Amino acid sequence: MHIRVVVPVLYSDELVEKAREEYTKAARPDTELSFVSILNGTQTIESQFDMALAQPETIRAIVEAESDDIDACIVACFGDPGAAGAKEMVSIPVVGEGEAALHFAHLLGYSYTIITVEETSIPIMKNMARFCGLSERLSSVRAVPFGVMDFSLACVDDVVRQSLAAVKDDGADVIVMGCTGTGVDMAAVAESRLEMELGVRVPVVDPVKAAISLAQGLVATGLTHSKKAYPTPVRARPEYEYHSAPAPD
Amino acid sequence: MHIRVVVPVLYSDELVEKAREEYTKAARPDTELSFVSILNGTQTIESQFDMALAQPETIRAIVEAESDDIDACIVACFGDPGAAGAKEMVSIPVVGEGEAALHFAHLLGYSYTIITVEETSIPIMKNMARFCGLSERLSSVRAVPFGVMDFSLACVDDVVRQSLAAVKDDGADVIVMGCTGTGVDMAAVAESRLEMELGVRVPVVDPVKAAISLAQGLVATGLTHSKKAYPTPVRARPEYEYHSAPAPD
Amino acid sequence: MHIRVVVPVLYSDELVEKAREEYTKAARPDTELSFVSILNGTQTIESQFDMALAQPETIRAIVEAESDDIDACIVACFGDPGAAGAKEMVSIPVVGEGEAALHFAHLLGYSYTIITVEETSIPIMKNMARFCGLSERLSSVRAVPFGVMDFSLACVDDVVRQSLAAVKDDGADVIVMGCTGTGVDMAAVAESRLEMELGVRVPVVDPVKAAISLAQGLVATGLTHSKKAYPTPVRARPEYEYHSAPAPD
Amino acid sequence: MHIRVVVPVLYSDELVEKAREEYTKAARPDTELSFVSILNGTQTIESQFDMALAQPETIRAIVEAESDDIDACIVACFGDPGAAGAKEMVSIPVVGEGEAALHFAHLLGYSYTIITVEETSIPIMKNMARFCGLSERLSSVRAVPFGVMDFSLACVDDVVRQSLAAVKDDGADVIVMGCTGTGVDMAAVAESRLEMELGVRVPVVDPVKAAISLAQGLVATGLTHSKKAYPTPVRARPEYEYHSAPAPD
Amino acid sequence: MHIRVVVPVLYSDELVEKAREEYTKAARPDTELSFVSILNGTQTIESQFDMALAQPETIRAIVEAESDDIDACIVACFGDPGAAGAKEMVSIPVVGEGEAALHFAHLLGYSYTIITVEETSIPIMKNMARFCGLSERLSSVRAVPFGVMDFSLACVDDVVRQSLAAVKDDGADVIVMGCTGTGVDMAAVAESRLEMELGVRVPVVDPVKAAISLAQGLVATGLTHSKKAYPTPVRARPEYEYHSAPAPD
Amino acid sequence: MHIRVVVPVLYSDELVEKAREEYTKAARPDTELSFVSILNGTQTIESQFDMALAQPETIRAIVEAESDDIDACIVACFGDPGAAGAKEMVSIPVVGEGEAALHFAHLLGYSYTIITVEETSIPIMKNMARFCGLSERLSSVRAVPFGVMDFSLACVDDVVRQSLAAVKDDGADVIVMGCTGTGVDMAAVAESRLEMELGVRVPVVDPVKAAISLAQGLVATGLTHSKKAYPTPVRARPEYEYHSAPAPD
Repeated sequence: MHIRVVVPVLYSDELVEKAREEYTKAARPDTELSFVSILNGTQTIESQFDMALAQPETIRAIVEAESDDIDACIVACFGDPGAAGAKEMVSIPVVGEGEAALHFAHLLGYSYTIITVEETSIPIMKNMARFCGLSERLSSVRAVPFGVMDFSLACVDDVVRQSLAAVKDDGADVIVMGCTGTGVDMAAVAESRLEMELGVRVPVVDPVKAAISLAQGLVATGLTHSKKAYPTPVRARPEYEYHSAPAPD
Repeated sequence: MHIRVVVPVLYSDELVEKAREEYTKAARPDTELSFVSILNGTQTIESQFDMALAQPETIRAIVEAESDDIDACIVACFGDPGAAGAKEMVSIPVVGEGEAALHFAHLLGYSYTIITVEETSIPIMKNMARFCGLSERLSSVRAVPFGVMDFSLACVDDVVRQSLAAVKDDGADVIVMGCTGTGVDMAAVAESRLEMELGVRVPVVDPVKAAISLAQGLVATGLTHSKKAYPTPVRARPEYEYHSAPAPD
Repeated sequence: MHIRVVVPVLYSDELVEKAREEYTKAARPDTELSFVSILNGTQTIESQFDMALAQPETIRAIVEAESDDIDACIVACFGDPGAAGAKEMVSIPVVGEGEAALHFAHLLGYSYTIITVEETSIPIMKNMARFCGLSERLSSVRAVPFGVMDFSLACVDDVVRQSLAAVKDDGADVIVMGCTGTGVDMAAVAESRLEMELGVRVPVVDPVKAAISLAQGLVATGLTHSKKAYPTPVRARPEYEYHSAPAPD
Repeated sequence: MHIRVVVPVLYSDELVEKAREEYTKAARPDTELSFVSILNGTQTIESQFDMALAQPETIRAIVEAESDDIDACIVACFGDPGAAGAKEMVSIPVVGEGEAALHFAHLLGYSYTIITVEETSIPIMKNMARFCGLSERLSSVRAVPFGVMDFSLACVDDVVRQSLAAVKDDGADVIVMGCTGTGVDMAAVAESRLEMELGVRVPVVDPVKAAISLAQGLVATGLTHSKKAYPTPVRARPEYEYHSAPAPD
Repeated sequence: MHIRVVVPVLYSDELVEKAREEYTKAARPDTELSFVSILNGTQTIESQFDMALAQPETIRAIVEAESDDIDACIVACFGDPGAAGAKEMVSIPVVGEGEAALHFAHLLGYSYTIITVEETSIPIMKNMARFCGLSERLSSVRAVPFGVMDFSLACVDDVVRQSLAAVKDDGADVIVMGCTGTGVDMAAVAESRLEMELGVRVPVVDPVKAAISLAQGLVATGLTHSKKAYPTPVRARPEYEYHSAPAPD
Repeated sequence: MHIRVVVPVLYSDELVEKAREEYTKAARPDTELSFVSILNGTQTIESQFDMALAQPETIRAIVEAESDDIDACIVACFGDPGAAGAKEMVSIPVVGEGEAALHFAHLLGYSYTIITVEETSIPIMKNMARFCGLSERLSSVRAVPFGVMDFSLACVDDVVRQSLAAVKDDGADVIVMGCTGTGVDMAAVAESRLEMELGVRVPVVDPVKAAISLAQGLVATGLTHSKKAYPTPVRARPEYEYHSAPAPD
C-alpha cells in the first residue's frame, strides 16, 4: 500500500526530511510512503490563522493524491488543517495526526493530557479534542515553553516535567505529544523517563505512530469516512487553481 | 460607527447587492456599512471544502478592515469561515452570522432547530453549534431541498413545513434560518406564518439581524474577543500575499 | 425605545440612583430609561432565599411595564429573579443581567470565570450558568470577600487578584463581573489592570452593559422570547394582588 | 418522626384532603404527618409564574416547621417551588416531590419519561431534570391533555397511552408521574396496565411515595442537605412578614 | 421485611461481623437482616479484577435470596459487583452500596467528593459515578493511603484531611465515604470533625446507611428495577453451577 | 506477531471455527493467530448476566496468554467482558471487539448507530458506548429480531432495513455491526447494499476487522494501556483457581 504524507507547511528540506525519517521508522516495511509539502501557507502551524492558510493547498494535495491512486493520506500536523474539507473531496482515507493521537489516548486510559508547544496553542488543542468528539477524557493541555522550530530532544526535560504534573495534579493517566517533527522518538524517551519517575507505565502517544498505524489499518480493512458525514460538494469548481510543493526524492 | 460586512464568496453583483439590502434594512440608521467579497474562493458556501477555500481571503479582508479603522467586521455566512483565524489577527470585534444567530436562538427558548438548505449542509450546522458551545439546546437541523443560489421567498412554504415539523416532532421552540442572502425578510414571513399555524409565537431568528445587532452592541460596549483565547500569531509572515475583491459602490 | 429597569430589591434612593447612573451611561442616547424597585423583598440579593422573595413583585413590575407600553424590561440583578416567570406573563423582551453577561462571556472566548461577592454566592452563580445552558465554557466561580452593600471601587484589587488567578490557575480567558450596583465602571478598570499585568487583553464583561445592549438589540430586531418555551399561564388569577415601588423621578 | 407536608397552593379542603389521603397511605404507620397550604399563591401550579408566586409562603411554612420541631418537610408539588430557598433557611431535610421522583426513576432504569399534565408544563419538567442534575437519563416528557384540577383516575387511559409511546418510540424504561393530587394510586394502576400491554414490568414512579420514602430515609439516617451548598443567608430580615394557611384538622 | 446483605468477598468471620454490626445499627428495628458472603472470589475488593471475580457468586447469592422469599438484597461493596447482572435475574430490589451513596450525595448538594482507600481505586470510583449516571456532580475522588483491610477509625485524620482539601480545593459540598466495613460510624465522626473545622455542616454519606435506607424505601413503596432496562436472560442455563458461602448465624 | 483471540463463551467447535475463519481473513498474513474459549461461562453472550459469568475465565485466558509470550489479546465479543479486569493483570494490549468497533465508527463520521441482535441487548450496547467514553456520537441502537445463534447471512435484509432507518430517521452516518460470529462478511454485504439504496457510501464497521486492526497497530507501535488507569492489583491471590478451554487445533 502507498500512503502519502502531506506536510501542511511551506516546503523546507529540513521539515520534510524529519517527517520522512519519523514516518519511515513507524511504517511497516511493505508500506510505500511519499511526502509533499505546500507552496502557499506558513512555515509552521501554531495558530488558527496558520491552519486557515494551510487548508486550500492541503486539500489540493490530497485530491491530487487520490488521482495518483494513492491508498490513503496523512495530514502531518496535530491540528489536522484541511482534513474535514479533504474528506468531502476524496474517497480514500484521510488521517490527521491529531485525531489519530487522540483516539489512541482515549483508548489506552481514562484521562489524557496533551503536551503542546507554547501556551498560545492551548485553545487549539482543546478545540481539536472537542471537534473530534473526544473531549470527555481530556484532563488538561499543558505547554512547554518552546516554538515548533525549536522543539527538539533538548526539550525532553520540560516534556517530562509537564507530564508528571499532569499525572499528579490533573489526574492524567495517558500523555499525548501535541507536536511532532523533531525527527527523534521523543515519545519513547519521555515514556521511559516517566516510568522511572512514577514506577508505573503511563503511555506517551506519538502522533506519527498513531497516524501511520490508523492509516494502514483503514486501508487494510477497506474502511473509509462516511460520505453522509462528508458529502461530495455538489458544484464543480474549475475556476479554482491549486499549487503544491512536491518534496524532492 | 462603521461596520464592514465580508461576503466570503467570489464577487458577484447580485450577492453583494442582496447583502447590502438586508444589512441596510437591519442596521441602525447611524451605522455606516461597507461590503467586500473575496477574489479567491467559491461562488457559494455549502460544504467544509468551500469554507476552507474561503478562509485565507476572508481573514485578509478583516485584517484590511482593521487597518482601515473599521469598528467591527461581520462574516456574512452561517458557517463563519475564517472568523476564528481572523480573531487572532485583529482586535476589532469579528461577528459570524452563524454564532450570532445561535446565541439569539439559545437566549429566546430552550430548544432550537436550524433550517438549512440541502441535506448535505446538516453536518456543518451541527458542527457550528458544537464549535460555538451552544449545542446543548440544539434539537435538530432540518433541510429544505434547495441550493443556496435557488433559495428565495418562493421557498417559504418548505421553510414553514420544516419549522412546524421541528416544533411538533423535535420539540423545538425557536427556529433559526440557516441561510441568508435572499434579499427579503424570510424570517419575518416565516415567523408570522408559524404563528398563524401554531397559535403561539415561535421566534424565527434571522442571522443578518442577529449579526448586525451583536456587532453594534460590541462596538457600543467596547467589548471584543479575548486575546488569551485568540492569541496574536507570534511570527510575522511577510511572504504571504492576499488579494480581495472590493465591492463596487 | 423605552426600556424599564426593574431593581428587584426594596426601594432605596442609593441603589436606584446607582442603577440609573450605570444604565444611563451604558444606554444609547436615544433610549429612554425608567427605573422601579419593589415593595416586598429584601435589601440585597445574595441567596436563593432572597431571589425567591423578590420574584412575585419583580414579575408584577414587568407585567405593569408591558401595560405601560414599555418596549423591554431588564432585571437588574445577576441572579435574574423572576425573569422566567415574567417571560410567561408578557410578550415584550425580558433580559436578565446574568444571562446577558454570560452570553457575552461565552461569545468572547472559550472559558470564562465569574467573580462574585462572598463565597456563599458561588452555588447560585454555577446554577445560573447551568440554567442558561452556558455552563460548557464556565471554568470557575471565584469570590471576593465583600457583601453586596460593601462592594465598591475599593474592592478592585481583590477583583483583579481573583481574575489573575482565574486566568493562570483555572484557564479562564474571559472574566464576568458577577455583581453590579457600584455606580462606577468596575469592569473597565479591572480590564485595564488585567491587561497591564498579563500583557494581553482579557475582556471583563459588565452585566449592565451586556443587558442594555441585548435589550436594545432585541427591540431593534423585533425578536422576543418563544411563547412555546414560556407559555402564557392558562388561568386568570384575579385573586392575586401585587404591589411595587416606583422609583421617584 | 414527624413530617410536614407543605401543599404550595392556596388552601382548599379538597386538595389538602387528597394530599392527606395519599401521604397517609404511603407513609410508615409510625410516621406522624401534618399538612399546611399557603395563603398567598395560586390555586394550582402549572407554570413558572405559579412557582414564583408560591415560593415566599412555601419557604415561610418550612421555616415555621423547623421552629415547630418538625423532623423534615415535603414540598407537595413536582416543581419543588421554594425548596432551594428553604434549604438555605433551615437545617431539617426538605424533600421536593419532583427531585425525589426523579432520583427513583434514575435509579430503576437507564432512561425515564415524565408524564405531565398539559403541553405547557413540558419546559418546566425538563428544567426540573436539569436543575436536579438528572437529565442524563431523561428520554422525554410527554403530556396528557388535562389540567391539574381535572386530573383524576379517569385520565389513566391517556397516561397509559403516552407511557407506551414513551417506551416504544423514546426508548424509556421507567415512567414518572409528573402530577399528583388525585387521591388515588394512579401510578400503581398505570404500572399494572403497562405490564399487561408490554409483557414486562416498567416501573411507574409515584412522587408521593418517592418523597415520603426519601424524607423518612433522611431522618432515619441523620442526613440533611449541605450548608456549603445551601448557605444560611447572612443578614437577618426582620422586616419581612409571612403568612401561611394551616390546614384544619 | 427481610433484607439480605451479600458481602461479595470470601467468607471471613471478621468482615461479616463488621457488616452485621454496621447494618444492624443502620436498619429499622423491624427490618430482618441476613448476611452471606461468597465461596469463590477474593478477600477484599480493590480492583476491577476483584470485581470481575466476585460477580458470578454474588449474582448466585441474589438469585438464591429471591427463591428464599427475601424482600430485597444489598451488595455490600462500593463497586456494586454483580448488581447489574443480578437485576436481570431477579425481580426483588437489588441495591449497591455505591449507587445508594452516590444518589444521596447527589441529592444533598451540588458537588460531591468520594474518599476512597488507595490511589489505585480512583479510576473505579470515577467509573462508578459515570455508570450510575451521576458524574455531573462529581467534583473529585481522593484517596487515603490505606488498604481496605487496614481501614479503621485510626484513619479518620486522613479522611478529614482529604475531605477538607476536597471542600477547599475541589469545590466539594458533600463527602462520600468510598469504603465501609470498619464496623464503626466513620462517616458520623468525620462529619462532626469537618463541621468543627469549617464552621458549616458538610454531610458525609455512609454507604451502609444509604443502602439500607434505599432498600427499605424500595420495599415499602413496592418499586423495583425496570425489566425493560434489565431484561430477564432468554435462555435457561441449567449447566451452570453456583456455590456461595452462607454466613454462620 | 502472535495475537490470541479469546472467545468468551463455552467451547463449541462451531463458534471457534467461525471466529477462526473471520479473524484469519481479516488479519495480515504475517500475523500468527491462536484461539481459546472458556470452560465456565455461557453458550452465547446476550445479557449483563452472561457477561458477568464470562469474566473470570476470560481474564484467566488473557493472563495465560501473557505468560505464553503472546503479543496481544482480543476479546471476541462486542460487550468486551473481562477486558477491564484483564488490563489490570497484564501488560500486553487487550482489545475488545466492541471498543475497537466504536472507535472506528466514531472516527469515520459524526453519528453512528449500532445494529444488535434482540431488543434486550439495547441497554448493554448503550452502556458500552458510555463506558468507552464514545457515546457523544451514538445516535441510536437498533435491534434485528434474531438471537446470537440464529444470526447469519440470512439476516442481512433486516440489518439493511434497520440501517436505512438509522440513516433516515436517526441521522446516522456510520453503522456498526453489534454482533459477529457469522463466519461471513456481513458488514461488507450490508455496506454495498446500503450504498445501492442510498447512493452514497455509509461505512459499516465490522468488529472483527476493527479489533484485529487495532491489536496489530498497538503491537506495531509498542503502545499498550496505562498502568495508572489499570493498576496491577496489589495482593497476590494464590487461592483462586482458573480453568479455560483451549480450542483444538
